[in-house]
Amino acid sequence: MRPSVCISLALSLALLATGNLQASEPVKRPPNSGEILSASSPGDWRRIADEDLMVIELARGGRVLIELAPAFAPRHVANVKALVRGRYFDGLAVMRVQENYVVQWGDAEARKPVGAAQRTLPAEFFRALDASLPFTPLGDVDAYAPATTEGTGFSAGFPAVRDTARSEAWLAHCPGMVGAGRDTAPDSGGGTELYAVIGHAPRHLDRNVTLLGRVVQGIEHFSTLPRGTEALGFYKSPRERQPLRRVRLASELPAAQRPALEALRTDTATWTAYVESRRNRHDDWFAEPTGHIEVCNVPLPVRAIAR
Amino acid sequence: MRPSVCISLALSLALLATGNLQASEPVKRPPNSGEILSASSPGDWRRIADEDLMVIELARGGRVLIELAPAFAPRHVANVKALVRGRYFDGLAVMRVQENYVVQWGDAEARKPVGAAQRTLPAEFFRALDASLPFTPLGDVDAYAPATTEGTGFSAGFPAVRDTARSEAWLAHCPGMVGAGRDTAPDSGGGTELYAVIGHAPRHLDRNVTLLGRVVQGIEHFSTLPRGTEALGFYKSPRERQPLRRVRLASELPAAQRPALEALRTDTATWTAYVESRRNRHDDWFAEPTGHIEVCNVPLPVRAIAR
Repeated sequence: MRPSVCISLALSLALLATGNLQASEPVKRPPNSGEILSASSPGDWRRIADEDLMVIELARGGRVLIELAPAFAPRHVANVKALVRGRYFDGLAVMRVQENYVVQWGDAEARKPVGAAQRTLPAEFFRALDASLPFTPLGDVDAYAPATTEGTGFSAGFPAVRDTARSEAWLAHCPGMVGAGRDTAPDSGGGTELYAVIGHAPRHLDRNVTLLGRVVQGIEHFSTLPRGTEALGFYKSPRERQPLRRVRLASELPAAQRPALEALRTDTATWTAYVESRRNRHDDWFAEPTGHIEVCNVPLPVRAIAR
Repeated sequence: MRPSVCISLALSLALLATGNLQASEPVKRPPNSGEILSASSPGDWRRIADEDLMVIELARGGRVLIELAPAFAPRHVANVKALVRGRYFDGLAVMRVQENYVVQWGDAEARKPVGAAQRTLPAEFFRALDASLPFTPLGDVDAYAPATTEGTGFSAGFPAVRDTARSEAWLAHCPGMVGAGRDTAPDSGGGTELYAVIGHAPRHLDRNVTLLGRVVQGIEHFSTLPRGTEALGFYKSPRERQPLRRVRLASELPAAQRPALEALRTDTATWTAYVESRRNRHDDWFAEPTGHIEVCNVPLPVRAIAR
């Protein structure tokens, strides 16, 4: 007997990788997520642009890949790119790791020159909801956007919320989401200090901080860092900080070091089927299907591809 | 400038500890959670019973404290206590750590004798909803219990769901919740293999696994463990497993080693105020109060006391 908690995306992807589930096999129940991904077509996937892929190498080892979200935070994303190109982050460090909350990195002393970038920017907590924004509604009730089941959804891979009454849309603080730390004033951030969510979604931060991207690979290099013992999870001593060896855009890296990733498109029938396979799981393990899903419980499938 | 993501419980408790917030200070906005806890009375807290407090010492260092939930899983809790008293877990190991999901420990080979305990038990996925069950409704919409805003709440400190139509109640898979791993058959678990949630709440597991407790201190010793690289986060090699040095009930430990904890009662006016302080945060940092909260975003305040 080897009890295991549940069929998960990891297993699904493992099944996909070993190819032991063929789309042509007869299936007696609705397909699970592994089977759906296995049966996907190349057009169901989109390449993550090198220019929007931030690569963080930790001095202790490990590479964290972050897809930036210019559609939601154009000025912050442009600024983070300028900071990266100016090598601002190289040699800075993770200085805060708070259990079930966030990992935060940047210049603990806030003294390093920002070069051609800006130190602060006007907040981009939300954007206008217009026809240019792709949006696939999830269709489920949400604790933090309860007014309408059209509230939460996905915009080109990012978990998001839209409010048709306000004509506004914003990114949701799901695990892996990356934002710009700020001081008390809403316009006091700008991307010089960044954080990634490593716990249960702190959705109360929605519309209160500028989110600008999402970890798409390597979050475990952040989530396993030692927790800081000071208030808010700050490390007590500078010696505890976790240095960043270098931070680059994938487009800046030599071809041999450049990651190449595809993410499942969130505007396809395959995506709809994938979400449904997680909303109601029909694998034998489940005693009863759930019937509901929450925006932060739909992980974005991402796969490495040959360049 | 030192941007920080938000005022959190950690800070609140730190403020409480340093005593720099007096209940008598004039407050110009509604109180935040630190202020509410600071102004609490001894009767707002309950002692966690030594007999219901499981103490896990990891060989690598670190002590994880778990409060058991006999009100929801009486047979599983009794069985886990029998396993602990029989020293079943001593020398076993964490063999699975899946990112944003669970840490799982037990006998990877499923061969160790269980002594006076049972290897498997009938499932306790939910219990009868009757007058004996304390329950403080949260009063907010929930993605996984959307039919009624009375669905989610807290039962003697545990996040829970009740369904008056079914006359059933069950524990919710929030971060830190501990359950009994099982095989495909619902009755194939029993507590010989346990897991703790270390990521965004996998609420689709509600009513599909027997939950029997919650980590009340030391979850960081689980959540920082290296992730397993096999499917479902299992460690590839037995050498990667993280041994448990010993597992005891607090009541079994010599007085000097016995932890003494109090948890905030969840049936008091202080609790109601505490929840409201997290539903709508009025600290200067917040650009706008949220107006909503979700059951897994209300951490249970726990404090060490003198014996």
